[in-house]
Amino acid sequence: MKSFILTLSCPDRPGIVAAITQNLAEQTFNILDSQQYSAPETGQYFMRIGFEGDTSSAQVERQLADIAGEFDMNLQVADATARPRVLILLSKFDHCLIDLIYRQQVGSLKMEIAAIASNHETGRHWAQDANLAYHTLGGREAKADNEAKLDALIEQDSIDLVILARYMQVLTPEFVARHSGRIINIHHSFLPSFKGAEPYSQAHERGVKIIGATAHFVTADLDEGPIITQGVEPVRHDMNVASFIDVGRDTERRTLARAVRLLTERRVFLNGNKTVVFE
Amino acid sequence: MKSFILTLSCPDRPGIVAAITQNLAEQTFNILDSQQYSAPETGQYFMRIGFEGDTSSAQVERQLADIAGEFDMNLQVADATARPRVLILLSKFDHCLIDLIYRQQVGSLKMEIAAIASNHETGRHWAQDANLAYHTLGGREAKADNEAKLDALIEQDSIDLVILARYMQVLTPEFVARHSGRIINIHHSFLPSFKGAEPYSQAHERGVKIIGATAHFVTADLDEGPIITQGVEPVRHDMNVASFIDVGRDTERRTLARAVRLLTERRVFLNGNKTVVFE
Amino acid sequence: MKSFILTLSCPDRPGIVAAITQNLAEQTFNILDSQQYSAPETGQYFMRIGFEGDTSSAQVERQLADIAGEFDMNLQVADATARPRVLILLSKFDHCLIDLIYRQQVGSLKMEIAAIASNHETGRHWAQDANLAYHTLGGREAKADNEAKLDALIEQDSIDLVILARYMQVLTPEFVARHSGRIINIHHSFLPSFKGAEPYSQAHERGVKIIGATAHFVTADLDEGPIITQGVEPVRHDMNVASFIDVGRDTERRTLARAVRLLTERRVFLNGNKTVVFE
Amino acid sequence: MKSFILTLSCPDRPGIVAAITQNLAEQTFNILDSQQYSAPETGQYFMRIGFEGDTSSAQVERQLADIAGEFDMNLQVADATARPRVLILLSKFDHCLIDLIYRQQVGSLKMEIAAIASNHETGRHWAQDANLAYHTLGGREAKADNEAKLDALIEQDSIDLVILARYMQVLTPEFVARHSGRIINIHHSFLPSFKGAEPYSQAHERGVKIIGATAHFVTADLDEGPIITQGVEPVRHDMNVASFIDVGRDTERRTLARAVRLLTERRVFLNGNKTVVFE
Repeated sequence: MKSFILTLSCPDRPGIVAAITQNLAEQTFNILDSQQYSAPETGQYFMRIGFEGDTSSAQVERQLADIAGEFDMNLQVADATARPRVLILLSKFDHCLIDLIYRQQVGSLKMEIAAIASNHETGRHWAQDANLAYHTLGGREAKADNEAKLDALIEQDSIDLVILARYMQVLTPEFVARHSGRIINIHHSFLPSFKGAEPYSQAHERGVKIIGATAHFVTADLDEGPIITQGVEPVRHDMNVASFIDVGRDTERRTLARAVRLLTERRVFLNGNKTVVFE
Repeated sequence: MKSFILTLSCPDRPGIVAAITQNLAEQTFNILDSQQYSAPETGQYFMRIGFEGDTSSAQVERQLADIAGEFDMNLQVADATARPRVLILLSKFDHCLIDLIYRQQVGSLKMEIAAIASNHETGRHWAQDANLAYHTLGGREAKADNEAKLDALIEQDSIDLVILARYMQVLTPEFVARHSGRIINIHHSFLPSFKGAEPYSQAHERGVKIIGATAHFVTADLDEGPIITQGVEPVRHDMNVASFIDVGRDTERRTLARAVRLLTERRVFLNGNKTVVFE
Repeated sequence: MKSFILTLSCPDRPGIVAAITQNLAEQTFNILDSQQYSAPETGQYFMRIGFEGDTSSAQVERQLADIAGEFDMNLQVADATARPRVLILLSKFDHCLIDLIYRQQVGSLKMEIAAIASNHETGRHWAQDANLAYHTLGGREAKADNEAKLDALIEQDSIDLVILARYMQVLTPEFVARHSGRIINIHHSFLPSFKGAEPYSQAHERGVKIIGATAHFVTADLDEGPIITQGVEPVRHDMNVASFIDVGRDTERRTLARAVRLLTERRVFLNGNKTVVFE
Repeated sequence: MKSFILTLSCPDRPGIVAAITQNLAEQTFNILDSQQYSAPETGQYFMRIGFEGDTSSAQVERQLADIAGEFDMNLQVADATARPRVLILLSKFDHCLIDLIYRQQVGSLKMEIAAIASNHETGRHWAQDANLAYHTLGGREAKADNEAKLDALIEQDSIDLVILARYMQVLTPEFVARHSGRIINIHHSFLPSFKGAEPYSQAHERGVKIIGATAHFVTADLDEGPIITQGVEPVRHDMNVASFIDVGRDTERRTLARAVRLLTERRVFLNGNKTVVFE
């Protein structure tokens, strides 16, 4: 008996759940857990089912192909033990990278870090230490080259998810469009507050009493992509920008790790400019 | 088109979901949301389905009676707009009572407070103000009389849920057994820390840095019932027991209100000595 | 022996603390607690001292008058048991009003609600119930009249603090200037996100995963005043704007109450466009 | 101009603050921040002053020696830039160790990790990677040898603080007494809940909805030492013990790091079986 995760979204209409679960039941598969949601704003239906059976994900997808077609479903079946292949991008700050590597190593995040790429050298040591490929990117002036290199990496390494783990360069709309729904970013503010550069300085300047971090899908609109999860931490009047950065480091890595966990467990769905998250 | 909530628990085995959703689909009911969980410790399956259709809850229950029998299901179908009838018990402290009344009034909690009973007079004013019946209970020495009175109230007023909103008297095991799964309590500590009397004094004595409150089902074992939800709040060295009580008041009412919301929305299931909560 | 709270701010320079505490020691007053902070951005020094002695606040202020003059101090001494006199303004939503009244009644907030004023009738019942004066204000078109009435109330009732407890009308810069540092507001968003009208709709539209509330001093710049404290609460994809409003009600009243507690305990200092908060 | 931190505790009586600050003012030192507290339960006074001046910590201590004697003060003056020398003990789990090393490296924790000791090899790699000495301890049967080795390390390396970063062996009361007030532990539960072994299993068994971690001073009574700080995280019904451990890993390292920061910044004072923490 193996475990699987079925995820689907489709235009809502009666009979979706019955069609799917009837089909699973006919194969004597056993449903372990499920979450379903009909989004009123978009008219989309979202479903995540964990089930077990003596089969393969490809076979289940074949079985469900007719139903998927009939209901116009975006449907995937994945082995519960399958590990999404991940490409991590970073610039100078390495705290998110280190944390992601550690969480992979201890089994907290079920992913395969296939490659790391950066326009700085800070992360190389950690990559080498973990036997992970570390690719060098150029600076801002080399954007076209960088993105060509990333496209190649994504292709070669069969990347499922690109994580901007404090990657400080803006991607072109074309690159983002090519990998739509597969790139996430950690922004070091509680969006939509403090978009753009140096959010901790902005937050300190404004005198907020709580700072935050936001994990979101990357879209062509900078810092405007669908939010996956957010984290916060209180701050005090006697903390300077450096203290905000220090506290924020922790919030960023936790918030990013939570987003990555939700994604690797296939709990996140795009719903227009928002997300549906089955926690 | 009306909205309904179906909840069920039963011994887990293949086909549960299909049987139910197939039946709903045949009536062209539309599933709005659903959560399902198979508990490994107890082998029980739990399901909550929100759906809409042109029918009544009684009719759906009839339709599903055969399936419910076949799978040995504990199954209910309720109107989504149905308001559980609630009996609130309190002693001297009225903050939870006031909050529950207010949340009912503004529509935050979808319940019908059918009656209030207390061995103190503190709450009477709030009850009268809201046109709610306020019944007087005796002290500890009158336990048998009190419980007879409560039994009668529960019967007469068709009470679905008894809320101990800082009711400081211990109920007999017999009373608890008669209303098993229908009585909840707010305990003013982060259980299992500080069971029993004066938990804030205990917490202050121990020098904890966070205090809490716990909403749980009442069982014969005092403060040992299945936990529904918990809340916490930081405290500091310069706070005395009175400050703990003050801070705690807020945590208690929020935690209790959250539990009541989860119950009135039919999101809580007993699973042995624990709960399954579909949030 | 009586307890007092001394608060001061002044341009920072050596000797401030010694001058003050030497003077207090000479009177054999006993310091119970103290917090002090030198703000690098503004060069201001802030101090709060709790002490006890056999004296009066006026007498201590006289004693310290020379030092206060020498160091250019903004210095106050208050009885620890003194209760600031408060004017509460609200419009339609009464949850913050009710909570403030209750917290005064149970002794959680050490203040005297001297009057309530509103352009709606929702709050009248609660005011009457607590024997508090309830003054009627006009709508937007009556702004000049309203503010004249408020000026009179503030004067007559010796108001120390004006609390906008969901008062939905914008005050004129002139009114704000006249009562600078004495008016606070609860804004129903995590500022600076979602300034202006209908922040919950804005937050829902953006798809944030955490919502918040901000208690801040009112200045001529709407929603830009110095922040006193902020509160947050997680939200989910299946919550609509009404659910945000419902969850937010709780966050608002808690955040406002925290701000009021900090102010009544004389723990908040203006420091340019920010606050120093000695918690 | 250099920065210093003065900390003291002594029996409370009038004149403490004046005596100290008068002395500091005479040297034209400038107070940057201060916190003071008189504990009613123990009658002790606690003070932390940050100040700057053209002097040395030894010289200030000499200057204050008479006052310290007169008031029976436990008084220290430290360079604000001084880094406490730390010995980290761990067993198998390395997440706290890795986090402490990283936080030292990025400057988040101002300490000097002088040595690491363990009865497992898990941490060696991380120690070597950071050029830190890694000492091998024996198992339970070698307790006397282990503690002799630790005594020697503490002596040789001038250790200020011993951190039990998931060290799973119980220290003898004699060892604890020898280093009283200098050993802290991270316990992986929200104390006093779930003392002793396998707290996550205990928490899972009880069905709590929030788990926690507690950083505390180590005393002869296991898990009963004065609490420095606590952290919490929500859990759900669908999480097994392994998930609790996974979530808890994060809470533990954050809570321990917060405690270490408070200690290295000299913000923590022992007050009987509790702590005073100037945050």
